[in-house]
Amino acid sequence: MSFSGQHVLVTGGAGFIGSHVVDRLLAVGARVTVFDNFSTGFREFVPPRDRLRVIEGDLLDTAAITRAAEGVTFVFHLAANADIKDNLKEPRKCVDQNIVATQNVLEAMRAHGVRDIAFASTGSVYGDATVVPTPEDAPFPVQTSIYATSKVAAEGLLSSYALGFAFRTWIFRFVSLLGPRYTHGHVIDFYRKLARDPSRLDVLGDGTQQKSYLHVSDCVSAMWCAIERAQAPINILNLGHQEWIAVRESIAIITRTLGVTPKLVYSGGDRGWVGDSPRILLDTTRLRGLGWAPTKTIEASVIDTLRFLQNSPYVERRFGAA
Amino acid sequence: MSFSGQHVLVTGGAGFIGSHVVDRLLAVGARVTVFDNFSTGFREFVPPRDRLRVIEGDLLDTAAITRAAEGVTFVFHLAANADIKDNLKEPRKCVDQNIVATQNVLEAMRAHGVRDIAFASTGSVYGDATVVPTPEDAPFPVQTSIYATSKVAAEGLLSSYALGFAFRTWIFRFVSLLGPRYTHGHVIDFYRKLARDPSRLDVLGDGTQQKSYLHVSDCVSAMWCAIERAQAPINILNLGHQEWIAVRESIAIITRTLGVTPKLVYSGGDRGWVGDSPRILLDTTRLRGLGWAPTKTIEASVIDTLRFLQNSPYVERRFGAA
Repeated sequence: MSFSGQHVLVTGGAGFIGSHVVDRLLAVGARVTVFDNFSTGFREFVPPRDRLRVIEGDLLDTAAITRAAEGVTFVFHLAANADIKDNLKEPRKCVDQNIVATQNVLEAMRAHGVRDIAFASTGSVYGDATVVPTPEDAPFPVQTSIYATSKVAAEGLLSSYALGFAFRTWIFRFVSLLGPRYTHGHVIDFYRKLARDPSRLDVLGDGTQQKSYLHVSDCVSAMWCAIERAQAPINILNLGHQEWIAVRESIAIITRTLGVTPKLVYSGGDRGWVGDSPRILLDTTRLRGLGWAPTKTIEASVIDTLRFLQNSPYVERRFGAA
Repeated sequence: MSFSGQHVLVTGGAGFIGSHVVDRLLAVGARVTVFDNFSTGFREFVPPRDRLRVIEGDLLDTAAITRAAEGVTFVFHLAANADIKDNLKEPRKCVDQNIVATQNVLEAMRAHGVRDIAFASTGSVYGDATVVPTPEDAPFPVQTSIYATSKVAAEGLLSSYALGFAFRTWIFRFVSLLGPRYTHGHVIDFYRKLARDPSRLDVLGDGTQQKSYLHVSDCVSAMWCAIERAQAPINILNLGHQEWIAVRESIAIITRTLGVTPKLVYSGGDRGWVGDSPRILLDTTRLRGLGWAPTKTIEASVIDTLRFLQNSPYVERRFGAA
């Protein structure tokens, strides 16, 4: 599969991962339609370029997404409510924005005969994994968050449409990503807290939570590799680094990079929040079998993320008040 | 746990399983509120009795279900769109009626501080199971139907609410049920076809599909056993028979019982429809460990189902035209 000459719809195309996908698609000669409600996306991430159309719209508006899918040949469905930490505050949000919205995308595709879709799922679907590193066919997990539940449901819709309507689907279960345009997660939380008060850092959990991270550029190259080389109707692939680091190590990298020495205050407990999975490391044998490997260490990815945040005051202007 | 003196809400209480649950609850002294939209439920299944209130309402009407949950102490959430065979004809139905509706029930419970819920899921969540008999922690399945996807999502909502809002949940993954008040599935399909033309029977698939079935009375006693004896926040339990039979055997029982000798015409293929799981046999070790065992053979259950259909012309009056 080559994207040159294709017309690719990227939902969430103004977001962190989405905008990197857009850059890569434009670079290889595709036409791109971005569909984004800009709730967490940034205009700065999708500056005007040739062969790029940017639509501001919401996936719950079925007419709008159906119009946007006209003439499209491939879809990256990356729009989502990614707020795993706070999903209990508004329990309906993940169901609407991740399940109903995904079905709206699939139905829009069906309306125009579009059948190829890549989707951003999450390693959180494994819940409190009993097998670590966790392979794609790990024991059937008990879901621990509405967020992960909504992603499992979206995955199931994709595979059902693959079987029922001859779709071809690439389902990527991501670890947390880092790198330029990162605007959500523990690195920005710590960065922001330390900007306000470099002498003290409050940390959720006991700091032993151990997770894997991946640089967004490695993520995009992994998706490209899989879409080119995995051609089954349903391709489910873990996407992550073979490394993982504890929250305490992550804090050490961040404070060293920022040149601060805060007092660390842990809230305690083995996890950051209800539904948090304290150990996330994915078995990426399947993806590596296709010839992909990450190129950046987690430490380099954390540092790259901090450099981005330091050089992008508009991110802090939007989110800093939160 | 005893239901005596409790006020139990049964969604789908006018349906096949629901009405048997209602009978049992009334027999042990509970007050019961049935909430049913009567799309597939029958007034005949819930005749007026003491301590019984029947509300005709739809679970997508959040105000109605929230009112119905007032004063309730336990919920059986059994209402669902169970049309696995035709879920591709109206792809949005399962998402609305099984996912959004389930969240509406959970939110109605939360509004009134109700925290105990038993839920009817399905063995179909295992997709094309790679391990048979299939245990609850079988390898993470790829979903093959929108119906099963919607049940997986509803399960995840329950377990997320258990962790996030201190709910206690019993999630039952059923095989297909048989017995009195059965109104949906292959036995009624064959019964109806043979009533129209006893000389010929068209069968989906090649007749080798092999599935397990359970009598509804054994199902109800299994749920009672689990609710009494399994007290974790999240209890996920397969519910089925150790026997299974091929479609061909099922047809032999049906034709023998009805005294007909049709010519059998198979549509061919290894499954009945897109997304059908051709082999369903659940490992019920977990439930048996609680002291439950089925009392009726599958053959006896098929025959009991046919007797019900023969004695209940009102079922045929409603569904016969389909």
